[in-house]
Amino acid sequence: MIRVVLIGFGNVGFHLHKAIKASTNTEVVQVYTRKSKFPKKLPKDTPITNTIDDLFDADIYILTVSDDAIISVSQKLALDNKLVVHTSGNTSMHAIDKRHRRGVFYPLQTFSKERKIDFSETPLCLEAEHKEDMKLLEELSANLNCTAHKLSTDQRRSLHLSAVFVNNFTNHLYRIGHELCETNRVPFEVLKPLIKETANKIDDLTPFMAQTGPAKRGDNKTISKHLDLLENENHKKIYNTFTQLIAKLYGKEL
Amino acid sequence: MIRVVLIGFGNVGFHLHKAIKASTNTEVVQVYTRKSKFPKKLPKDTPITNTIDDLFDADIYILTVSDDAIISVSQKLALDNKLVVHTSGNTSMHAIDKRHRRGVFYPLQTFSKERKIDFSETPLCLEAEHKEDMKLLEELSANLNCTAHKLSTDQRRSLHLSAVFVNNFTNHLYRIGHELCETNRVPFEVLKPLIKETANKIDDLTPFMAQTGPAKRGDNKTISKHLDLLENENHKKIYNTFTQLIAKLYGKEL
Repeated sequence: MIRVVLIGFGNVGFHLHKAIKASTNTEVVQVYTRKSKFPKKLPKDTPITNTIDDLFDADIYILTVSDDAIISVSQKLALDNKLVVHTSGNTSMHAIDKRHRRGVFYPLQTFSKERKIDFSETPLCLEAEHKEDMKLLEELSANLNCTAHKLSTDQRRSLHLSAVFVNNFTNHLYRIGHELCETNRVPFEVLKPLIKETANKIDDLTPFMAQTGPAKRGDNKTISKHLDLLENENHKKIYNTFTQLIAKLYGKEL
Repeated sequence: MIRVVLIGFGNVGFHLHKAIKASTNTEVVQVYTRKSKFPKKLPKDTPITNTIDDLFDADIYILTVSDDAIISVSQKLALDNKLVVHTSGNTSMHAIDKRHRRGVFYPLQTFSKERKIDFSETPLCLEAEHKEDMKLLEELSANLNCTAHKLSTDQRRSLHLSAVFVNNFTNHLYRIGHELCETNRVPFEVLKPLIKETANKIDDLTPFMAQTGPAKRGDNKTISKHLDLLENENHKKIYNTFTQLIAKLYGKEL
């Protein structure tokens, strides 16, 4: 049995807690939150504290606090030679106070409290100072049915950056699609199968192979019709930027 | 039984032919292609011609030619009072020669010959001059197990434009993610669950609600770390454009 203390209960803490509760061979022995009011979403049978000096004994202490708080919170932990890991994509393992055995347990996923996650579909990016701690993190990943990847800080950082492109910016493109649909009184539902297929297509094809559309074809007529339709200057700017880049990538002149 | 002649055999023609073959109550009685060499991917039992004057009798003639060819090909069709539809998202129904009964049968999806499509997941955008033709197009859609939407030309055009954002540009963001992974020797596979979840999340949340990341939080520290990591000027430009737009949308100052 792997005993875990969760430090912080934001989006990552919430989903990680849920995944551990659903697994066998792992348990959340305690949750720490600095908030004086305990989160409603926490099941009553999980012990919770807001006193950082009152942490229970555990095998792994998982920090799910914000990136900025990793240094200060890890300094405050009154623990002796315990494995303390953070869950940040963009923070060095060495941000954790050096009194601890340090590691990283970064779930590469987009978490919102309102949306259920199949945690087993979440890749875990692991880093640890000591071999035996890496083994324990791998065991924890396996208990959650997750695929684990041993990655360096630089590799993890580049994934975190890539995630901003493929998730944050992609979602903003969906938002623009949503706006265009609303303006023209078309249900956004009609776009959803295309959105899904765009994501699923890369199972069979690289993004380079999967590309379609007027920019790839160098289809100036369609491009200028689209630019005429767009009223929002920001949407025009995005349209032009991507169109130029895609056309260039496929050797088309516009 | 609805009898269809397919005019053109590109990506759309290929997938539509396959979907009709798999359905009951509809058959492709003939395929026309202007190419002298017949496409290898066409099953041997489908009659094929490259003589436009030799078309068989059918209930619906579906043009899957390029947008530019719709006017000229429809003018050449030696048909009398037959239903001729095109499959273009961005072309008026009236591009079809007025000697025909005209309509539109636009499948909103991304088609590549190398990737199998579940056609029943493809929304069909329909338009027709005559009520009875709309009924026939709806019947054809139902035979393919597709959801059909009666849309005006303007609505269809706005969907076509939206599709460029949510498919073409999104796929280019995947391409950038792929490049960043390759540069840092991280398998692109690690990003795929996030890409899928980004697309599936909008089943439960609007894109506005689903947004996460440093731009939404106004997290300047992470943003400047990311900009330091990016070496490609085009990637920097995209990063800055989206970050500004997302921050503004959520009332954050950067």
